[in-house]
Amino acid sequence: MIQSRVHVSDLREHVGRTVTVFGWVNTLRLQSKMQFVVVRDGTGMVQVTHERDNGPLEARLQALTPESAVKITGRVVDAAQVKLGGLEIVPEAVEVLNPAATPLPIDEQTGIEHRLDWRFLDVRRRPAAQLIFAVQTTLEQGMREYAYAQGATEMHTPKLMGTASESGAEVFELGYFGRSAYLAQSPQFYKQMAISAGIEKVFEIGPVFRAEPSFTSRHATEFTGVDVELAWIDGVEDVMAFEEQMLTHAIAKVADAHGEAVRERFGVEITVPTTPFPRITMAEAHEILRKGGWHQEGIKEDLDPEGERSISAQIRQAAGHEFVFVTHYPVGIRPFYHMRPADDPSVTLSFDLLWKGLEITTGAQREHRYDVLLKQAAEKGMSPEPMQDYLNAFRYGCPPHGGLGMGLGRVLMVMLGLESIREVTFLFRGPNRLTP
Amino acid sequence: MIQSRVHVSDLREHVGRTVTVFGWVNTLRLQSKMQFVVVRDGTGMVQVTHERDNGPLEARLQALTPESAVKITGRVVDAAQVKLGGLEIVPEAVEVLNPAATPLPIDEQTGIEHRLDWRFLDVRRRPAAQLIFAVQTTLEQGMREYAYAQGATEMHTPKLMGTASESGAEVFELGYFGRSAYLAQSPQFYKQMAISAGIEKVFEIGPVFRAEPSFTSRHATEFTGVDVELAWIDGVEDVMAFEEQMLTHAIAKVADAHGEAVRERFGVEITVPTTPFPRITMAEAHEILRKGGWHQEGIKEDLDPEGERSISAQIRQAAGHEFVFVTHYPVGIRPFYHMRPADDPSVTLSFDLLWKGLEITTGAQREHRYDVLLKQAAEKGMSPEPMQDYLNAFRYGCPPHGGLGMGLGRVLMVMLGLESIREVTFLFRGPNRLTP
Repeated sequence: MIQSRVHVSDLREHVGRTVTVFGWVNTLRLQSKMQFVVVRDGTGMVQVTHERDNGPLEARLQALTPESAVKITGRVVDAAQVKLGGLEIVPEAVEVLNPAATPLPIDEQTGIEHRLDWRFLDVRRRPAAQLIFAVQTTLEQGMREYAYAQGATEMHTPKLMGTASESGAEVFELGYFGRSAYLAQSPQFYKQMAISAGIEKVFEIGPVFRAEPSFTSRHATEFTGVDVELAWIDGVEDVMAFEEQMLTHAIAKVADAHGEAVRERFGVEITVPTTPFPRITMAEAHEILRKGGWHQEGIKEDLDPEGERSISAQIRQAAGHEFVFVTHYPVGIRPFYHMRPADDPSVTLSFDLLWKGLEITTGAQREHRYDVLLKQAAEKGMSPEPMQDYLNAFRYGCPPHGGLGMGLGRVLMVMLGLESIREVTFLFRGPNRLTP
Repeated sequence: MIQSRVHVSDLREHVGRTVTVFGWVNTLRLQSKMQFVVVRDGTGMVQVTHERDNGPLEARLQALTPESAVKITGRVVDAAQVKLGGLEIVPEAVEVLNPAATPLPIDEQTGIEHRLDWRFLDVRRRPAAQLIFAVQTTLEQGMREYAYAQGATEMHTPKLMGTASESGAEVFELGYFGRSAYLAQSPQFYKQMAISAGIEKVFEIGPVFRAEPSFTSRHATEFTGVDVELAWIDGVEDVMAFEEQMLTHAIAKVADAHGEAVRERFGVEITVPTTPFPRITMAEAHEILRKGGWHQEGIKEDLDPEGERSISAQIRQAAGHEFVFVTHYPVGIRPFYHMRPADDPSVTLSFDLLWKGLEITTGAQREHRYDVLLKQAAEKGMSPEPMQDYLNAFRYGCPPHGGLGMGLGRVLMVMLGLESIREVTFLFRGPNRLTP
């Protein structure tokens, strides 16, 4: 890269020297005697101070527009009166690398939908938005570190499927050389195939697609899923143990790298959780909720968002923990491939993980016995033919296994205390949004 | 996980003790006095030796089928006569966790297409295939390590687009809530938007989709792309420098972790390249090829696969290097958004990277000046309206930038000396293949 470039956050080390800063015009104050330009890069903001002299530099500064991309070369000088770090740059050369048109299409008052239309400006102008993606990078890095240390293999499973996965209703269909293909709603079937292929621990971060007409703050038609699948498990407890360790490692890494910035930008404290996380069964959760007077209409077996928030709040009060695994979901609200315990076929060896009231993960031990799997599919009214490729993976020695799928955006929402998945997604996709 | 489980590769440390091994029945030799079962896990193979005694263990071993998933508990004993590590397991308990049906649908003679139909068995039964995904994991880890150390941010850009990207011809179209959406052929437009959003270095590994009816050994309709985009560059040289450093770091990591295994399984030596990689212009490449008598019919401006192999071979002979950057591709065969040098508008500030004769990367400095970009789009006969969201990113201060897109599968093919991208993809997708 450019050798002489200095990031704004490093300017203090260069007082008295001439440096080059690359960034955007954040604000302009063009007074009768002085010209002040605040320049912003990814690390901070600095004031560029120029005394009018009727020279070419004055004209160039005068012509600047907010958000133009500029290259400023100048001397860094101590200036105790300047709020931005107590220093300023006295410019020697100013180059406009890309001018910004005026006026800008968004400002501080712009609502979220219009901000999303101009997402590049929205993210560029808000240090908090930039921080989201730095946190995301560290979070993924932390999860991968843990998974690799456990011997996981990073797989890239196909997003194009020959038949609709799981439930056919909420799947996108596309034309594929004269026939139809479908977008994978999750890597579920393929990561199980990887288990049957002898990959002991499967790890994948990639896009998943949901053709659901959901307009909530936590749903998207395309989002980033973190998927894990583990072979040779003793039970679903092994999956939960893997997840709580992975999350704890990753959250600690984020707290270490960005804890202070997150506190400053979002007013949120990142607490590294203790392990094990609390666990309660769905039956226990219902009992707790009923005692509290909860009786959501129509919700007999599952938890609605209010129930999830209530359970989390009560666990937090009782156990002092932000996380809770809710286990043993009833058969009726879980897919056919979830294993059922031998002593109670009405429930599944499954779990959801709630963090501060939001479901961030669904997981389970999978049924790996071909005959039982066929039976459970039939009970759900599913025909084996369209999923024969999947079912075949269980006919030739598939190990016991289980896994989990986590929504990366939801983890970020909770971690940063943000209200909507639109804020933590670079370019959000929903039923009404396919742009920019 | 299971505490008492021992991987086959660690058995030597447990001689004299009782352990549990999980794996698959690799081969069975059921003789009149003795039963021999070779069990394979991801780390190796071990012989289980049982003297017939008319007991339940004998019956259980007798009923085993190849590729059944088994749990074997037994004593590890020294057995110098046994080729597999000079030890064997004397079984005390044998449990079939998942039986394999007979006969198996593939064997050692099965051709590639039928192997792909039963990919899970194909990968499970061949240690070389398992190694591919271990190498892939390390390779990605190495690339991410380098990118993170350079301050890159890992982005997940949408695969669903509102309008067809780049060229409309080879794009998959899908129904999207009563209208059409398109699958991204690359993260190109979105990673440039991330640059305009103030992300200084963008890194993404994810699926890309190509609706090309190509049936070669190096094309797929869905593959894993490694994408990098760098802001504030001085020129395309910065992009090439980033790539050669990233690749060198990652290849060194693979050589360190898997060099010996790759030599054993694939007969290939992984050579860590020196930097800088050789660079030649397209004009120089053509001159070299013409001197060698090359004149591929119909190829006037580009290199055909034969030309790529020939250039690589000659550079290898002349410079002793497996890699070569071919630069300055003519305008006619590069997209409208590639920047052109001020002193020669007939070429682009672009490059391909060839490794042992195969193109593994295309990269360029991008045109970030809105007016020039519009002009170049018009010259290619493209209308600005459908891509206005993209073009808007250049109207409000987009920094100079450039980047690259690398095919992960192609890198693996060359690294492991494999003939087809089908071999290095877990579940290959092509015009005729959407399953399993």
